[in-house]
Amino acid sequence: MEDPAKKYFNCNDRERAVFEAGIKLGTIYHQFVGTPISKDNVEPLERSIEESIKVQPFVKDVKVRIRRDRIRKKKGLYKYLTLTGDMLDVELVVQYNNVEAVCYLRYIEEMNYPLMYIGEIKVI
Amino acid sequence: MEDPAKKYFNCNDRERAVFEAGIKLGTIYHQFVGTPISKDNVEPLERSIEESIKVQPFVKDVKVRIRRDRIRKKKGLYKYLTLTGDMLDVELVVQYNNVEAVCYLRYIEEMNYPLMYIGEIKVI
Amino acid sequence: MEDPAKKYFNCNDRERAVFEAGIKLGTIYHQFVGTPISKDNVEPLERSIEESIKVQPFVKDVKVRIRRDRIRKKKGLYKYLTLTGDMLDVELVVQYNNVEAVCYLRYIEEMNYPLMYIGEIKVI
Amino acid sequence: MEDPAKKYFNCNDRERAVFEAGIKLGTIYHQFVGTPISKDNVEPLERSIEESIKVQPFVKDVKVRIRRDRIRKKKGLYKYLTLTGDMLDVELVVQYNNVEAVCYLRYIEEMNYPLMYIGEIKVI
Repeated sequence: MEDPAKKYFNCNDRERAVFEAGIKLGTIYHQFVGTPISKDNVEPLERSIEESIKVQPFVKDVKVRIRRDRIRKKKGLYKYLTLTGDMLDVELVVQYNNVEAVCYLRYIEEMNYPLMYIGEIKVI
Repeated sequence: MEDPAKKYFNCNDRERAVFEAGIKLGTIYHQFVGTPISKDNVEPLERSIEESIKVQPFVKDVKVRIRRDRIRKKKGLYKYLTLTGDMLDVELVVQYNNVEAVCYLRYIEEMNYPLMYIGEIKVI
Repeated sequence: MEDPAKKYFNCNDRERAVFEAGIKLGTIYHQFVGTPISKDNVEPLERSIEESIKVQPFVKDVKVRIRRDRIRKKKGLYKYLTLTGDMLDVELVVQYNNVEAVCYLRYIEEMNYPLMYIGEIKVI
Repeated sequence: MEDPAKKYFNCNDRERAVFEAGIKLGTIYHQFVGTPISKDNVEPLERSIEESIKVQPFVKDVKVRIRRDRIRKKKGLYKYLTLTGDMLDVELVVQYNNVEAVCYLRYIEEMNYPLMYIGEIKVI
């Protein structure tokens, strides 16, 4: 499909692919962090984040996993908590023309930071 | 179940029920407005919003409907849009002790405004 | 000023005031949790949250404080973090007709929970 | 300053710069869309968005303008509205090592779409 926005961009296909990937990872973090979460809704939330990213342009695939080991165990009425960046484990594949970028959002223990990074850019 | 937060509140059960309802409606609007949406993910998004509200305290029931008639029809790569308040149609039932509050978030045509309002407070 | 939404509500003025307060506290939490924050932008963020709440109906006053003691000290490029609910300390005054509701969002140590609660409802 | 995350990335400096820019533009859109806005808080909100982006790594400069011409004129108690993507006009400069990427988020009339795009990538 022809990209109607192409004329606004001043870059090559590899650069475009990772720019688009950066947008999607920023979207996941800042749209969904803060969502109420407990054992009971973790799966529908994972699916819903994936589906909302897939409607965006150039997304070939996305897998979202909320890390159960980082959900604190609490009891009683106030047992739920809200989604934080360190719970997110995302693998995202963006395709622009024949370039594919595989990018990640993952909590990196040694940095104590949920890092968004570029794993691979390849011609397919 | 005993409410461990009771001592912080200075109000009766009816007031508590609608206060909790207000929190949940504000949560739905401000957590999810901006989420990428198209015909393809409208249903998982509705379910996911419902499930994330149900994990919060005192929610007895919630129905979330995203108004298909307010999703613009667009074509091509940039055909998706993002969720806005006027697309949301929510019915929420909060129960605190033996008081039930039925509240809504609905786009009111004559006000051109997505209104959150109290439909009924009753003893059950 | 006459309230054009009055006919949709089925409640008294005290209930209306705390419902509106609940909406605003839910708004603060779910709109702003996730915002990038460091020592450098904590003050403009506090002001900006206050100003955005004051444009909403029936808000008489609001004070937002981001707790510096809950901002972790980190060094280097990735030293910033993102706003979480436990950093928020909010005092909100809503007025509906001659009823005033004073409500709070505060991290309660013994509950390990950022609690939204009703401090007082009074006739003024 | 040494980048402690460098080893996780598999790309060149130009690609890294635009990836970081994509993240920041996605952040602006999805963190702040939905914020209550009126004539009264548009300036503190612009400043607050800029300041929250500047705390993130590799941001050299950012200018955020909320388009007054796209804020609807409404009267009365419910006169405010909430921030939408088409109101945002952002110019962002990211620097990674000696590469600078100038990127934009702008509402493109002919596409009816708030487009994030790469204006220029240059060696400085």
